[in-house]
Amino acid sequence: MEKRDMLYEGKAKKVFKTDDPNLYVIEYKDDATAFNGQKRDQIAGKGELNNKISALFFELLRSKGLDSHYVKRLSDREQLVRRVTIIPLEVVVRNIAAGSLAKRLGWEEGRELPRPVVEFYYKSDELGDPLINESHIAVLGVATPEQLDDITTQALKINEILTAYLRARNILLVDFKLEFGLDAEGRVLLADEISPDTCRFWDATTREKLDKDRFRRDLGGVEEAYEEVLHRLGGQ
Amino acid sequence: MEKRDMLYEGKAKKVFKTDDPNLYVIEYKDDATAFNGQKRDQIAGKGELNNKISALFFELLRSKGLDSHYVKRLSDREQLVRRVTIIPLEVVVRNIAAGSLAKRLGWEEGRELPRPVVEFYYKSDELGDPLINESHIAVLGVATPEQLDDITTQALKINEILTAYLRARNILLVDFKLEFGLDAEGRVLLADEISPDTCRFWDATTREKLDKDRFRRDLGGVEEAYEEVLHRLGGQ
Repeated sequence: MEKRDMLYEGKAKKVFKTDDPNLYVIEYKDDATAFNGQKRDQIAGKGELNNKISALFFELLRSKGLDSHYVKRLSDREQLVRRVTIIPLEVVVRNIAAGSLAKRLGWEEGRELPRPVVEFYYKSDELGDPLINESHIAVLGVATPEQLDDITTQALKINEILTAYLRARNILLVDFKLEFGLDAEGRVLLADEISPDTCRFWDATTREKLDKDRFRRDLGGVEEAYEEVLHRLGGQ
Repeated sequence: MEKRDMLYEGKAKKVFKTDDPNLYVIEYKDDATAFNGQKRDQIAGKGELNNKISALFFELLRSKGLDSHYVKRLSDREQLVRRVTIIPLEVVVRNIAAGSLAKRLGWEEGRELPRPVVEFYYKSDELGDPLINESHIAVLGVATPEQLDDITTQALKINEILTAYLRARNILLVDFKLEFGLDAEGRVLLADEISPDTCRFWDATTREKLDKDRFRRDLGGVEEAYEEVLHRLGGQ
């Protein structure tokens, strides 16, 4: 497998073609952005940490029968993934009120939700990734009702697997964002990444934040928190 | 039937008890508010016009088999209604992109939607009536999934009835907001009002606005537009 031209550079990752048209290489960057790109910085080692953490989560999910675009980790910063066409939805699953949900419902941050909440945001920097519902999705034509059911079922299963796994490592999975894509056969496949950039992780004892909120809210110790997560997952 | 103490005063209506515990009197006010109460004025005759328009719509719906809280019109400004407990959701049905939907999806105002959009907003002045989805509603506990299905089915049927009726009077039903309540038997019943305050009506030929957007956007001729709607509905 040979890495070729860069296809796309996002806020946190670069995507490269390979000599196999069905395989891409993803390179994780140290760039940190928040609030739709308004806040920017570099966090030394973040790319490597997120690549390793994300690879561990994708391997965990695979071991539980949940497939994704992930093929294998190639290096400290690189993963080999299957080519998918990304569905332009951010799929958010929440177990504890935090961030925009706390504001939207007027619930204090940290309050446990009686059941998981699933939200869809329309991926559009121009529109500020607005919350949308199933009828907006139907009108936009970004996913069929069957694909949306498939996404929701997978998202809730991922939530169950990750919540139990993290709980055993004294981490609360507060909420997380997933993206899905369609592979060459039209299958809905988990894509993107699962990392402290895309999840809220709280220490289950102290409720200390071990995720990107340390960057968003200027709490300091961003790299140390990401390292702590990797450490608790058994990585290094 | 005897009108008794005022129970509640809202932005556009007052609600009074009667000597029958299952019946209320609603009095329509001339007060106009927009943007969660930030813009306020009085529009001479608005209360009377909305009372008459709303009564005509409720009677139309009843004639098509769709029941509501409406019993009968009592006077220029008053309606007799059945007592319901309002479900704190604003149910919005949209046929043409306008207002917040145009902003949310990045669609130009006036673009026809390929199918009706149904949205739920959580009725909360404090939170600014945020858009919510079915999983938020489940967490908030404001309606059961069965009640939500009932509401959606009724809202889409109301949309069909009103759209056809208005189209024959050269009016486009762009979008509208409904509220539902639970009666003493737990039935989901259409409540609140249906008027130029709660609907977007456009002249089908000129696309001239015949609704509250004339007030929101300082277009003038608010009372004349409401009168035109009542006139086209055959009222006076």
